[in-house]
Amino acid sequence: MKIREIGEFGLIARIKKDWPASFPQIFQGIGDDAAVSSLLPGNDLVSTVDLLIEDVHFELSWITPQQLGRKSLAVNLSDLAAMGATPRWMLISLAIPSRLEVQFIDDFCAGLKSLAEAHGVSLIGGDTSSSPYRLFISITLLGEGKKESLLYRHGAQPGDDLYVTGTLGDSILGLRLARNRKGQSPSPQERFLLERHLDPAPRLEVGKTLAEKRLAGAMIDVSDGLLADLAHICEESRVGAVVWAEKIPRSEAFRALVPGPAGEGWKWALRGGEDYELLFCSPPEKAPELHAQAKGWPCGITRIGRIEPLAHGVVIRDEKGPIDPSRLKGYDHFSAAIRSDRKGLPPGRARRSGFKKAVGERK
Amino acid sequence: MKIREIGEFGLIARIKKDWPASFPQIFQGIGDDAAVSSLLPGNDLVSTVDLLIEDVHFELSWITPQQLGRKSLAVNLSDLAAMGATPRWMLISLAIPSRLEVQFIDDFCAGLKSLAEAHGVSLIGGDTSSSPYRLFISITLLGEGKKESLLYRHGAQPGDDLYVTGTLGDSILGLRLARNRKGQSPSPQERFLLERHLDPAPRLEVGKTLAEKRLAGAMIDVSDGLLADLAHICEESRVGAVVWAEKIPRSEAFRALVPGPAGEGWKWALRGGEDYELLFCSPPEKAPELHAQAKGWPCGITRIGRIEPLAHGVVIRDEKGPIDPSRLKGYDHFSAAIRSDRKGLPPGRARRSGFKKAVGERK
Repeated sequence: MKIREIGEFGLIARIKKDWPASFPQIFQGIGDDAAVSSLLPGNDLVSTVDLLIEDVHFELSWITPQQLGRKSLAVNLSDLAAMGATPRWMLISLAIPSRLEVQFIDDFCAGLKSLAEAHGVSLIGGDTSSSPYRLFISITLLGEGKKESLLYRHGAQPGDDLYVTGTLGDSILGLRLARNRKGQSPSPQERFLLERHLDPAPRLEVGKTLAEKRLAGAMIDVSDGLLADLAHICEESRVGAVVWAEKIPRSEAFRALVPGPAGEGWKWALRGGEDYELLFCSPPEKAPELHAQAKGWPCGITRIGRIEPLAHGVVIRDEKGPIDPSRLKGYDHFSAAIRSDRKGLPPGRARRSGFKKAVGERK
Repeated sequence: MKIREIGEFGLIARIKKDWPASFPQIFQGIGDDAAVSSLLPGNDLVSTVDLLIEDVHFELSWITPQQLGRKSLAVNLSDLAAMGATPRWMLISLAIPSRLEVQFIDDFCAGLKSLAEAHGVSLIGGDTSSSPYRLFISITLLGEGKKESLLYRHGAQPGDDLYVTGTLGDSILGLRLARNRKGQSPSPQERFLLERHLDPAPRLEVGKTLAEKRLAGAMIDVSDGLLADLAHICEESRVGAVVWAEKIPRSEAFRALVPGPAGEGWKWALRGGEDYELLFCSPPEKAPELHAQAKGWPCGITRIGRIEPLAHGVVIRDEKGPIDPSRLKGYDHFSAAIRSDRKGLPPGRARRSGFKKAVGERK
């Protein structure tokens, strides 16, 4: 059965179905002109929005509807994780091609709900429309926290240690695998990398603990690639940094499958986006408490560098010395079409940080 | 200059440009993983989202970029007006075809900003992407109010008078004019109707006063057409209603230009959507205070009917008696393509209420 056969009312009924009816903090959910909800006393509102577009951020041939539902929320959850905030409510805008099957929406919603429930997020509003061509998903995620305890991009101090959770570069490899699969069954390593791209796990517990225990000075999630996201911290904190390339954490699957000589692997891990790990800095005197906390985090943390004074700039070093930054550029999907060196760069490698990025850091 | 020539960073810089740097209630605006803002003490959060899609809700051949910017926010402001809430912050998702001119975005943002400034709304976040084909705009508007003072769709009582602000039906006529213009200069009446469709004025002051002075029991904005929106109030309040067709307020321009015999004009006014007027009910004993307040509202208010007990149903009466409801159906743009009686129905007549509508009211 196609979406156009059930109409908009039928569609909305399916999307709304099976969400918990109400939470203590929701006074009016779906079903009025706007939702009404309450923050806990003394808390501030934390808001973020992310857009996922068919054939820009994903292709329906290689992501399942459930994965897409989960990922649509995961990218937002990762933003709140990077603030150390607690997610609460979401609003969803869905523009859906009427050629899609109703089953697609049911599966998409099942995925969305599974991740929402895991993190205590309720759906409080939305808008739907038919789409002339492509599927468009925009989710606004609202959360809360105390503004003075949250973690920002500013706040890094020279001398701070630089840490990252989990491993980097898996997602970009997973994307390549997803695009190049020809129906063959993936190996366990390939499956790991695919999952890292298609179903990323936002680091909410880590983010919240770092904020509440004041173990970090500045934090960001790695969505555009370590290099680009570190640049945001450095710009907003008015500091420089050094990253030790060989310290960049790479998974076993990454090490096994990355193309080129093993020593070059860190470049993929440095440039690949959509890792949804947390990059943060922490004063050395907090290291014992930080590492004690980190024992409870399955993703783990790795010290990859140090915050330096502004004049130092951002320097990536490998065993031979500093790396030429021009070899490590990011990706701009608006300009991709007219830049010959970007031709063939896959969909899915679009920037994820939108307005959140500071403007002007790319010279 | 095309969007693709300035890239995503250039685009974001243009969108962010010239917004007020900070407001007292904004602790962190654009430029971090999420925005952090504070409600006034004792206030609750009011949230809504609306989606506008090229060739579904508008065509670029008949709406200017400035009008589109204003309307993208206006439809959201109207939702907060219908709650009696105060708008504060917005987040915007923009998927932009790279074929568009940079000037288009500058003009769109100028329009958006002009309406935002008029209502004290700040941009605190967003996401942008290229779009393979069409322009997609999703705006999340956040506001505040006290949950016990806000106005909902429930709360209507039998015996309440039913009122609407302004005039109805102008927008649907304006849409038809917009679609059928062949470059000729519009008459003053046509210009009025076009403006009513392309640049609607959300009734925030009316909504807020009704809520704060407790002059209304239930309220909704007229986005899907009076009939559909009244059905929401009746369903949520578990009441019926009578509407006196001849009382439905119609503008001079509407009366002059509406096709068909004059006596049939109210059907257009009843069914046409996107009026963005407020429909509310008020106990008769509050009428003197209500009318005293209404003297300060340029849009005016008109009593068009009465709330009845549930068993009465929703009845529209003209001078000959009750109208057959099947003659007054709404529009579902998902099903439009396969319903022969809907063929030719123009873009721009898509439903605007999304998830806000109750499910199941169309039998």
